[in-house]
Amino acid sequence: QYVPYAKYQKYEVSDMHERSVQFHKLLDSRRTVREYSTEDFPIEVIENCIKAAGTAPSGANLQPWTYAIVKDKALRSQIRQIVEDEEAVNYARRMNEAWKEDLAHLGTDAQKPYLDDAPYLVCVFKHAYRMEDGERLSVYYPEQSVGISVGMFQSAIHNAGLVTLTSTPMGAEAQIRELLGRPENERLYLLMPVGYPKGGANVQVPNIKRKPLKEICSVH
Amino acid sequence: QYVPYAKYQKYEVSDMHERSVQFHKLLDSRRTVREYSTEDFPIEVIENCIKAAGTAPSGANLQPWTYAIVKDKALRSQIRQIVEDEEAVNYARRMNEAWKEDLAHLGTDAQKPYLDDAPYLVCVFKHAYRMEDGERLSVYYPEQSVGISVGMFQSAIHNAGLVTLTSTPMGAEAQIRELLGRPENERLYLLMPVGYPKGGANVQVPNIKRKPLKEICSVH
Ligand SMILES: Cc1cc2nc3c(=O)[nH]c(=O)nc-3n(C[C@H](O)[C@H](O)[C@H](O)COP(=O)(O)O)c2cc1C
Ligand SMILES: Cc1cc2nc3c(=O)[nH]c(=O)nc-3n(C[C@H](O)[C@H](O)[C@H](O)COP(=O)(O)O)c2cc1C
Repeated sequence: QYVPYAKYQKYEVSDMHERSVQFHKLLDSRRTVREYSTEDFPIEVIENCIKAAGTAPSGANLQPWTYAIVKDKALRSQIRQIVEDEEAVNYARRMNEAWKEDLAHLGTDAQKPYLDDAPYLVCVFKHAYRMEDGERLSVYYPEQSVGISVGMFQSAIHNAGLVTLTSTPMGAEAQIRELLGRPENERLYLLMPVGYPKGGANVQVPNIKRKPLKEICSVH
Repeated sequence: QYVPYAKYQKYEVSDMHERSVQFHKLLDSRRTVREYSTEDFPIEVIENCIKAAGTAPSGANLQPWTYAIVKDKALRSQIRQIVEDEEAVNYARRMNEAWKEDLAHLGTDAQKPYLDDAPYLVCVFKHAYRMEDGERLSVYYPEQSVGISVGMFQSAIHNAGLVTLTSTPMGAEAQIRELLGRPENERLYLLMPVGYPKGGANVQVPNIKRKPLKEICSVH
């Protein structure tokens, strides 16, 4: 039950270094976008990005993720309604003042027009457990596994010249799951619109900074 | 405090599609490797992959991650000792029979020679909270944020022709944090050896399958 890792590809040190520089440059040009064009594109592109997400490592190789692509306009509007209703409660009651202050520099609020505008919404579900022959079985480290998978998905989306927004629609998780008819073992992990930015490179994004290497890396 | 997304790059549909195919192909050739060559390589390559990881989105842009690179041979051996001692307890007591059955097809056990062999260990810490002027402040959605960041890190490592192993050293988290002198708000999220596979493309890996698209994706 073992096989050689036939697809392994080794590079010369200089190539390896150059590839690491270029890959950082690619990902460094990613930004979260909150204003979407309604322009459509073939769903196969998102499907290929989900295939990339499906290559992620996972605890015991259980691959505990489901990516639901929502294309239907009426469904997207229903999701927007659910999320905005919950976000109104979030801003009014569930989030404390410190939380709202921490978000202030991003200029976000309870309105989510992007849920209507973007041609696709991708709902990622984490499997909290699995069912086999009517039996409820464990899943190992699903939080980490799905997180890693989403990192690969977002890298793929960005590499294709599309943009997304990582969002956690607090309070709306179960309603979205039910609306999409997903089973009870699946828990909404993230909701991501996918599309083109409204106005292309002119779309406005918060002027925020990434920590320099020395703040996120220690050497021992 | 807003700026245009000047680095945004849009592609023609045919290019976008081709890029999505190629990116899937790239990530699909990744495998988890458990036998490492002791061959060294410049630390700058790992640092560039950590820079790529540092571009990930995060709740309120708090970037709640620290990547500790362990190069020192004695420290790596100490980590191996800590992990193997805990893994012996894990296999003997903490993991139930069902869990061990779910892992059986991977052929893993409590021995971790790769923690000595690989020239680098990367310990990823998740920030459970943050300290500012002696005050303990919140972090938002750190599990998801760090997971996404690790997905980008692993994509970058793979793109550079290096291999890694995603591991969760149960029971060893606090000891590793203390050994590396990381502060109390940092929690070990994953431990990853990074290096070349022993024997290159001849290294043996479990013959396992990835779910096809239709099992991980629904369209609505
Ligand atoms: C969160 C997480 C924890 C893991 N823990 C371990 C581990 O402790 N030991 C191990 O050998 N593999 C571990 N793995 C690796 C998985 O077994 C591996 O990703 C899976 O079998 C799929 O193989 P592939 O990565 O080659 O596609 C872990 C993976 C993930 C995502
Ligand atoms: C787990 C997670 C949840 C997030 N939730 C929201 C959200 O609900 N609404 C929103 O506008 N942005 C959300 N974001 C996006 C962050 O605000 C954004 O990634 C951060 O400000 C950094 O900006 P950048 O992605 O352009 O680098 C979230 C990001 C992550 C990783």
